[in-house]
Amino acid sequence: MTRIYNDPSAFKEEVMEGVVTAYPRYVERVPRAAGFVRRGGTRDGKVSLVIGGGSGHYPSYSGVTGYGFADGCVLGDVFTSPSTEQVYRIARAADGGAGVLLSFGNYAGDRLNFGAARERLLSEGIDTRIVYVTDDVASAPSDEADKRRGIAGTFTVYKIGGAAAERGADLDTVERVMRAANAATFSFGVAFAGCTLPGSREPLFRVAPGQTEFGLGIHGEPGIRTEPSMPARELAGALVSSVLEERPVGTSGRAAVLLNGLGATKYEELFVLYGHAARLLSEAGVEPVLPEVGELVTSLDMAGCSLSITWLDEELEEYWTAPTDTPAFRRGSVPVEPVTNARRRVADAAETAAEATAASELSVAAAAVARRCVAAMADVVVANQERLGQIDAVAGDGDHGLGMSRGLLAARDIADTTDARAGVGTLLQRVGAEFGDKAGGTSGVLWGILLSAAGSCLGDSEPVDAQRVAVAARQGADALQRAGGAQLGDKTMLDALLPFVGDLEGQLAAGTSLAPAWEAAAATATTAADATAALKPRMGRARPLAERSIGTPDAGAISMALILTAVGEVLRTEDCAH
Amino acid sequence: MTRIYNDPSAFKEEVMEGVVTAYPRYVERVPRAAGFVRRGGTRDGKVSLVIGGGSGHYPSYSGVTGYGFADGCVLGDVFTSPSTEQVYRIARAADGGAGVLLSFGNYAGDRLNFGAARERLLSEGIDTRIVYVTDDVASAPSDEADKRRGIAGTFTVYKIGGAAAERGADLDTVERVMRAANAATFSFGVAFAGCTLPGSREPLFRVAPGQTEFGLGIHGEPGIRTEPSMPARELAGALVSSVLEERPVGTSGRAAVLLNGLGATKYEELFVLYGHAARLLSEAGVEPVLPEVGELVTSLDMAGCSLSITWLDEELEEYWTAPTDTPAFRRGSVPVEPVTNARRRVADAAETAAEATAASELSVAAAAVARRCVAAMADVVVANQERLGQIDAVAGDGDHGLGMSRGLLAARDIADTTDARAGVGTLLQRVGAEFGDKAGGTSGVLWGILLSAAGSCLGDSEPVDAQRVAVAARQGADALQRAGGAQLGDKTMLDALLPFVGDLEGQLAAGTSLAPAWEAAAATATTAADATAALKPRMGRARPLAERSIGTPDAGAISMALILTAVGEVLRTEDCAH
Repeated sequence: MTRIYNDPSAFKEEVMEGVVTAYPRYVERVPRAAGFVRRGGTRDGKVSLVIGGGSGHYPSYSGVTGYGFADGCVLGDVFTSPSTEQVYRIARAADGGAGVLLSFGNYAGDRLNFGAARERLLSEGIDTRIVYVTDDVASAPSDEADKRRGIAGTFTVYKIGGAAAERGADLDTVERVMRAANAATFSFGVAFAGCTLPGSREPLFRVAPGQTEFGLGIHGEPGIRTEPSMPARELAGALVSSVLEERPVGTSGRAAVLLNGLGATKYEELFVLYGHAARLLSEAGVEPVLPEVGELVTSLDMAGCSLSITWLDEELEEYWTAPTDTPAFRRGSVPVEPVTNARRRVADAAETAAEATAASELSVAAAAVARRCVAAMADVVVANQERLGQIDAVAGDGDHGLGMSRGLLAARDIADTTDARAGVGTLLQRVGAEFGDKAGGTSGVLWGILLSAAGSCLGDSEPVDAQRVAVAARQGADALQRAGGAQLGDKTMLDALLPFVGDLEGQLAAGTSLAPAWEAAAATATTAADATAALKPRMGRARPLAERSIGTPDAGAISMALILTAVGEVLRTEDCAH
Repeated sequence: MTRIYNDPSAFKEEVMEGVVTAYPRYVERVPRAAGFVRRGGTRDGKVSLVIGGGSGHYPSYSGVTGYGFADGCVLGDVFTSPSTEQVYRIARAADGGAGVLLSFGNYAGDRLNFGAARERLLSEGIDTRIVYVTDDVASAPSDEADKRRGIAGTFTVYKIGGAAAERGADLDTVERVMRAANAATFSFGVAFAGCTLPGSREPLFRVAPGQTEFGLGIHGEPGIRTEPSMPARELAGALVSSVLEERPVGTSGRAAVLLNGLGATKYEELFVLYGHAARLLSEAGVEPVLPEVGELVTSLDMAGCSLSITWLDEELEEYWTAPTDTPAFRRGSVPVEPVTNARRRVADAAETAAEATAASELSVAAAAVARRCVAAMADVVVANQERLGQIDAVAGDGDHGLGMSRGLLAARDIADTTDARAGVGTLLQRVGAEFGDKAGGTSGVLWGILLSAAGSCLGDSEPVDAQRVAVAARQGADALQRAGGAQLGDKTMLDALLPFVGDLEGQLAAGTSLAPAWEAAAATATTAADATAALKPRMGRARPLAERSIGTPDAGAISMALILTAVGEVLRTEDCAH
């Protein structure tokens, strides 16, 4: 519903004030008139395109007033035609001496008031033409096309006319081109829910929940049928078949295509729909030219959308693609420098990273140990999955065991299927990437970082001795800490990892060999993990949970200790003495 | 709510397919990666800006990938961080050999995954920096600014960074500029209603009806206070004071300003709000530079908006105003030709049209008669107002009598206050314009056209004889018919007017003088008006009403006959024999 306003009766006036305050570089007010002309007015000798209708359809009409589009726009109250006097005043102010083209959607009030304004302009010697837009195929049968309403296809017709006028076409030409554009434009829309006018508490109309109304007008004019809402691909089919029904004979297939949202049907939804619509259009031989997916002709916060197609010949395509610069629609001539070699890089990057480079024999041997470590890590976490979940449920969402299991099982698979000639660096990097991707959640990502960083440190060619393992553990812990942002004592996995790394470094410095040093350090980590029971969680978790978790250790610290212990057992079995 | 999708779990993938189908001129997919790089990739030697986060915020992020903005974007599921692997893949594909700047809003998941991806990119020798955006002043106090979330201010920070990279700045510079932009950016938002995720039946969160939640995050993170909804000008005050609270020392006052809609709070509302906000900003010495009012960072169909301000120094302003060309945001370099003399024309047109030119004596005399005619027209319609309303209520909304009275009373006022030296042409044109403007509805506009066209025909200098009156009547009827589009027999005022004009022409051709000819023709009109009872209304009125109205004459035809009769009586009194 429309919620932001002061006095509803002043809504239009306040909207206009906001538009000219935000976009003085594009538009200016005309004293005592409801609407705008381009900033500085129309240049001498240029045909002036003046569009308009009721308010509530932004970017129509003030949002498309500017270079290459409209010269002036007239705004009625919400969903109400502007008066004759207002049309007259804006048109007079927009006149550049080469005549005025008045254009609007085909609604009785607009035809009347723009028609009356035209009479007055003619009587003052200003050559004035009218092209009203009739793109909505749902609003009348094809043999009464002149009775059809104008909906989002108005955008394309105005754009084309504005471009023709900008290029210096005379009034006859602008009129001819806009009539051709209108005759080539077909739209079909659906609605899911009505909008609410400023000051109203009830929507203008309702669509029953779960239903879609086909052919509903942008002011809530009744549609042609109501159906239960359908998946996006079926909806796309309905829209495409409706706009293609009256494909003119002899079209090249090139077409301006708009998928227009009415207000509350949002961009992501429109893109889902467009993907399907574009495929169907392509199958029908349609080639969209600079299509636009977005909000071009809205109806306040109405939920719904429409598909519009304008069949292009060479002339219409030239005007459709021409530059324009307005508050809400810009199609520029930004200089695009040639891109060198980039396409190759994109393709390269798409290949799975880092094919195994020639690895040293020692690194390949270390990779074999690492594979067994990963298997043991998976085993211990799967065996403790339920317990980890219960611990995590005290202060978190209880998925720590499940996520770690999922990540480590995937990591074990990738380790087992990695080329046997790969070094330990490549292996751990792959394991880390897979773990991070599959485990989900914070712990998975941090474990991924830890393993990848350790792998990167170990590399594929260097000998893997105890010192190097300690350096890799430290670098992994550093990377994890950088990414996670936690400190020791924040009740995270770091509270097990940092004591482990410190102890490992100490043991090795004291001359202990790798396996017993690792086992001793893992015992330290286990003690430290249990001790996290006394800690409060780090900032950022909700306060009640923080209180509740005191007395329970951190699930991430516990799983860290379990894993380090399991790895220690593998190292002892492997007899990694160096 | 989000209504257009197929399988909710495939939503993101289908959105991306739609984006690349609609905008292949801007973006391309990266195989096996969730996101895009610019079409053709990053040019060699250019720093690459890679942005991203959860889906559901279009135009962020794919809608701002292109020249002068982002080089790549990574998309997680709706409101969910992309995985490390996805960030890594897009960043690798976007790398142009000069380093990668990863930027995103400050959310735990994004920091983690972008952080982890950075580790991996660094390990592969790709210099990678991170700038996370912290513009939401409601999300943490100023002394913990680093904990603040990123909301719509992300747009400005990315834009500035993208422009710097496009200009060829090196990685150090792009990082420095983006940190400066982030430090200078302050946003504050409100929400009125939650969005609904694809596949959900319930909104993600609710705001009590009639309430506004201040400081609510773009994923529904709790706000800082809830208040009853307020008029737009008060809301503007709350937003402006919040963003100005931390104005840095020494700013020039020039600032990029965004008023961002979250999805279901629409453009007209945003403009109402912007008008008030801009005034308050101006009072505080802020000078908005190329402000934007629209949807830049949405949250599906969430109802709400935010105000963002970025204090600009010379360098930031240069980058903020630089050209860009992306699917959803374009800031071009369209050539603007100088506008000659147009400003004068706009001002001229604003003056009330057509100051009375020197009128002939005969025309001034005719104007006096016309004044009395207008008074008589008003009298007869006011006297018959209730009856006309009752007739109109059968097939219409019953306001015909009221509207005609209102229009004619205003017309009489304008006739009485028009310069006594004005000719009959000017007088009738003014009367017509006023009648059309004040009566409202179709009849008023058509009467306005009729009178204006007749006035235009009579002019201010020609002698006003019987023939000329007949020609004016015919031209008025023609103009009315052109504008209204009805035919004889459509049950409109034309069914009285056309027989009148035909009879008038015939009587004059037969040598009858004006007054008796007019009276005879008015009698014909009265008969014809009564006879409309047998007709069905013209197409376009609802069918049940059409049936119901058979047996009742048309209110417009009846008032036409009454008016023509009343004018005839004036002419007889005035003894208009010629």
